[in-house]
Amino acid sequence: MSFPSRVIINEVGPREGCQSESPPIATAAKIELVNALSETGVPVIELVAFVSPKWVPAMADAEEVLRGIRRAPNVRYTGIFLNVQGLQRALAADCAIDGTLTVSASNAFSKRNTNKTVDEALAELPAFIRTYAAAGIPVRRINVAAAFGCNFEGVISLDRVLSRIDDVLAIAYAHGQQPSSIKLLDTMGWANPEQIRRTIAAIRSRWPELEIALHLHDTRGLGIANASAALGEGVREFDTAVGGLGGCPFAAVQGAPGNIATEDFAFLCEQLGIETGVDLDRLIDCVGLAERIFGRTLPGHLAKGGLFRDVRPALARR
Amino acid sequence: MSFPSRVIINEVGPREGCQSESPPIATAAKIELVNALSETGVPVIELVAFVSPKWVPAMADAEEVLRGIRRAPNVRYTGIFLNVQGLQRALAADCAIDGTLTVSASNAFSKRNTNKTVDEALAELPAFIRTYAAAGIPVRRINVAAAFGCNFEGVISLDRVLSRIDDVLAIAYAHGQQPSSIKLLDTMGWANPEQIRRTIAAIRSRWPELEIALHLHDTRGLGIANASAALGEGVREFDTAVGGLGGCPFAAVQGAPGNIATEDFAFLCEQLGIETGVDLDRLIDCVGLAERIFGRTLPGHLAKGGLFRDVRPALARR
Repeated sequence: MSFPSRVIINEVGPREGCQSESPPIATAAKIELVNALSETGVPVIELVAFVSPKWVPAMADAEEVLRGIRRAPNVRYTGIFLNVQGLQRALAADCAIDGTLTVSASNAFSKRNTNKTVDEALAELPAFIRTYAAAGIPVRRINVAAAFGCNFEGVISLDRVLSRIDDVLAIAYAHGQQPSSIKLLDTMGWANPEQIRRTIAAIRSRWPELEIALHLHDTRGLGIANASAALGEGVREFDTAVGGLGGCPFAAVQGAPGNIATEDFAFLCEQLGIETGVDLDRLIDCVGLAERIFGRTLPGHLAKGGLFRDVRPALARR
Repeated sequence: MSFPSRVIINEVGPREGCQSESPPIATAAKIELVNALSETGVPVIELVAFVSPKWVPAMADAEEVLRGIRRAPNVRYTGIFLNVQGLQRALAADCAIDGTLTVSASNAFSKRNTNKTVDEALAELPAFIRTYAAAGIPVRRINVAAAFGCNFEGVISLDRVLSRIDDVLAIAYAHGQQPSSIKLLDTMGWANPEQIRRTIAAIRSRWPELEIALHLHDTRGLGIANASAALGEGVREFDTAVGGLGGCPFAAVQGAPGNIATEDFAFLCEQLGIETGVDLDRLIDCVGLAERIFGRTLPGHLAKGGLFRDVRPALARR
């Protein structure tokens, strides 16, 4: 075990949570949730997706949400995009942008999620790089979606993941870019702790210069165990969603749990002595707000179990 | 990591789930749930508590449930008891009994759960041993409740846990008994993966002859991560509850998640190549049955996320 001393939490709940909702969450409610999350100490909030309103109507108000939020000084407000048109919208909006090159390890998921095969997605990467460059943004990261398994294709081999990273790095290097980080996305909740360890070890051994980040889903209950395994390997950056919001509209079983819950993950870190900068009380307040906005109990545990310091006074009152 | 090749799952859902319900679950529904669980491959089902109907009315039908179930040949049907009168009831019923000596690491929890201080509980152990002996049952196990933390007392130090084990072993040895196993109960969901590893290492170093078993709650979302850490240390026996039923009527925050879910834990084992003997499809059917009986969605994930082999046909139908 070599735990990091500090981790970065990317709060993705507003984006992951809202994108699947039908009817869409009201713009004002999205803004209220982001404003509350801005006070929790998370350093990054991913709040919008610049995708076609035809395919994802729940994200049609991306620009309006970005305009409407109250920005905290130490928070970066980000979004995602699946094609160059989406990136251009993000550049035109007031949105923090990491130069990211995204590819899926699964061809079937790539087709379903972006309407492009993996080869077509790779072929579009130079256009992404040029668009970033024109905006003065270096390529900082590679994202590999469906890196641990796919509801459409089944198990994804480690060789396939390494080969996808190779493909993207080759394109980046050919265009004079030096990504420093790779994010592995367990988009459909297939990972297990051993696979996490094995995958991290293989990437580190091949590309020791690359930082690793993880985007984990708790679809089948292993999300926090996977995060714990990754922390033990020293991983320092995680995507999480308040309350365990999330899921992928093109991938998840209806009603499946979403991303790992920010509050459960931050609590794990606190228990392991790893700093997150997050105020758990405020985060739990945000879970309550999210449950009111989404109109249902969310899967995260900590808000139901209670912080240790809350438990004794509550029991004394019973 | 030194995973065991096989683990024993003690299914405690009927006992842990039913004991906190108000109004009580109907006897026939308890029997139906146990009968269904008997077909899943779990080797042990803990289905009743021999406790005062005055304090735990939901368990007043313990004998009736034991009489009513259809017994599968390879399943042991067990119950718990908190005092010698309860043990005598268990002996009179058709209930498999392990010679177990139980003590709490927390004095406050002991008082709340059993109306005895730890010293009083220790003082009663010889009476347990004599009662077991009269029935020809050797003392096989020590249970330490609240071994990782307590909602009433806060953090429980490792020294305190070791000292409690010492106390109980001294009494067992003085009466010619040789317990071979110690079960650590995270009764109120305080454990974290590092604490699990540290505690296991300390017990192994002091008493290498004792097997370790774990009873984990998922109160704050770390239950499966704790189980994963324990599997990595070679622990071979776990208490789990179908659907994540459970909680302790004297301990938990109202509405807190319960034990680790049997199906999520068994899925973790399957993914790690560890045999459980459990049929996950049948277990997921039991989650559905339990949700109908308890009238609510249970916290376990796998039934919502779906087994990998179920996901693709379901998606094809959408």
